[in-house]
Amino acid sequence: MNLSLVPAPVRIIGTGLIGGSLGLALRTAGVPVQVEDISPGTAALAVELGVGAAPTDGDPAPALVLVAAPPDVTATVVAEALARFPQAIVADVASVKVQAIDRLREIVPADDLTRYVGAHPMAGRELSGVIAARGDLFRGRPFVLVPHATTTPRAVAALKALATEIGSVLTVLDAETHDLAVARVSHVPQVVASALATALLPAGDDALGLAGQGLRDTTRIADSDPRLWTEILTANAPAVRAVLGEVRARLDEVDQALQSRFESASAPAGPTPRRTLAALVADGNRGVRRIPGKHGGGGDDFVTLTVLIPDRPGELARLLTEIGQENINLEDLRLEHALGRRVGLAHVAVVREAENLLTQALTARGWRVAPG
Amino acid sequence: MNLSLVPAPVRIIGTGLIGGSLGLALRTAGVPVQVEDISPGTAALAVELGVGAAPTDGDPAPALVLVAAPPDVTATVVAEALARFPQAIVADVASVKVQAIDRLREIVPADDLTRYVGAHPMAGRELSGVIAARGDLFRGRPFVLVPHATTTPRAVAALKALATEIGSVLTVLDAETHDLAVARVSHVPQVVASALATALLPAGDDALGLAGQGLRDTTRIADSDPRLWTEILTANAPAVRAVLGEVRARLDEVDQALQSRFESASAPAGPTPRRTLAALVADGNRGVRRIPGKHGGGGDDFVTLTVLIPDRPGELARLLTEIGQENINLEDLRLEHALGRRVGLAHVAVVREAENLLTQALTARGWRVAPG
Repeated sequence: MNLSLVPAPVRIIGTGLIGGSLGLALRTAGVPVQVEDISPGTAALAVELGVGAAPTDGDPAPALVLVAAPPDVTATVVAEALARFPQAIVADVASVKVQAIDRLREIVPADDLTRYVGAHPMAGRELSGVIAARGDLFRGRPFVLVPHATTTPRAVAALKALATEIGSVLTVLDAETHDLAVARVSHVPQVVASALATALLPAGDDALGLAGQGLRDTTRIADSDPRLWTEILTANAPAVRAVLGEVRARLDEVDQALQSRFESASAPAGPTPRRTLAALVADGNRGVRRIPGKHGGGGDDFVTLTVLIPDRPGELARLLTEIGQENINLEDLRLEHALGRRVGLAHVAVVREAENLLTQALTARGWRVAPG
Repeated sequence: MNLSLVPAPVRIIGTGLIGGSLGLALRTAGVPVQVEDISPGTAALAVELGVGAAPTDGDPAPALVLVAAPPDVTATVVAEALARFPQAIVADVASVKVQAIDRLREIVPADDLTRYVGAHPMAGRELSGVIAARGDLFRGRPFVLVPHATTTPRAVAALKALATEIGSVLTVLDAETHDLAVARVSHVPQVVASALATALLPAGDDALGLAGQGLRDTTRIADSDPRLWTEILTANAPAVRAVLGEVRARLDEVDQALQSRFESASAPAGPTPRRTLAALVADGNRGVRRIPGKHGGGGDDFVTLTVLIPDRPGELARLLTEIGQENINLEDLRLEHALGRRVGLAHVAVVREAENLLTQALTARGWRVAPG
């Protein structure tokens, strides 16, 4: 039974990871879903996987159309949908918004444009393909609603209902704010991680053998899809350039400071090289501490303990069982390994209030525990 | 009883995290350790923590001196130690090597210099202070031995014995190779992570609310000690500039490509903007895949499964217990959370051969499992 407030039926155009996951989530909520894709094979697979039904001539026209196409064709597909379904609300779910709305203003009649609203349901990962689709992909993740100047309240309400139904956390932003935000928290980190990883190509095996957890963390997202990211970065070029410019300016400063180390003490006025380097790291401290923690409460409420884990089956499970027996909830857990090591380190984050209790309890149970 | 091949007694000069941890590890192995520090209070604390004994007039002269001083004073302290203890082997354990040996060639008589050898026992973390010292800090971690042109075999043997005793994995590199390697795998990643984190300072709370695991990973090490990193980066300026130059050149290319998106199709010859962006990400893929895995065997032998974890005490422990019951060894584990989410995702890495078995076993036990 469809108890949702999402206008139905919903037509999903483009059944990749995002479109497919939206379909799975909506059908779980009882919402009738029709699917189409430029590739008939992909559409057939989506139907088989339960994303939605293939539309037939007798079907009612969709009340809501979700365009889940690649960024470079989003505007065209939205414009077509507004024309094909003159009563429907049409939303795109692309990860970049300014480019699409600018283009739509050029190619869509002003009356039709009121039925359009942008959306960005953020997925936790940049996999692709309907085969990776999951109904819970958006659960607990941000859903950015991006109305434009003439979007109707009816369209906004429809998308808010969608966000609720798929379990997302709603944020409303204008297109420019959205694009700059995702440049900061996603697109520029991707560019920087990729650039950093390219510097491992000329490294000798000896050098790579010295790699630790820091290098693994900073470059993990570099293992991502070149085609997808080319489209995203191209679509969001202005915002990416703006944020990347800030990062590049910092790196230029560092380079200048490291170069001037070799020059005379009677250098021109301005910050000393050491001061520039210390400011970089200190500002970075402040920046990273602004990232919200697990429940959006900032990172300062948690403390991390390090526990030594023998490298054999069951040890980590035993640790976590024993933490559970103390009735302490694990807020975060990270394992650390390094070349040739026979033990691992578990970095266990708990609420600050539980720190002493946990340290004492684990030590009493024979674990090696250290702060940090 | 001292069964080790480390020449004894050992004098540790500088009892911070590194010096303190070396002392703890050596004493565990039965090696007599004497400690001194420019700060009498720090030295007294080190003695109290069991790092070593305070030297007295009746003590035998040290056979091995380990200089664990900040990079900027390392050469001076080594030179003094070579003069004070004319029979001792003297090693420094600073994380940058070229600067110290260059300086030592200037200030130490050639005969004395044969008793000097560089070393870099790599610690997993950049904490500081003797209070954070641990005897197992270097266990399973790389130990880089850095002989210079006239280092005697006796000095090399002494440091190899030290590496064995503290449980490290030995690598021998010349100073230039070492400094370039640590620039690549540690110093430049630190600079880049810090620069990326500074770009979060102007972000609005709305933007930060969109942060996901990728941003957390890429900026985690930005939360590090400004004073320590200023010294490290300054000491290794030439190598850091060389590697940072490669990264900056890539970022410049990206900026150029994103800018030229807006220019006419009749742009000057050269790679197209899209091609530059795709090459960045693809090269980054290849770079990150060169980082050795947990046991130094490359990352390709492991596969990762994603398991949905309800956010309440005991669930993760139950998962790991059940994995243990299947007698499957966990190679890596990463937890993922996001704003407002009621569940977490556990990314569970196992050997490739165990993938199907684990997927089936966990699914049968009621877990939600997906690849990747």
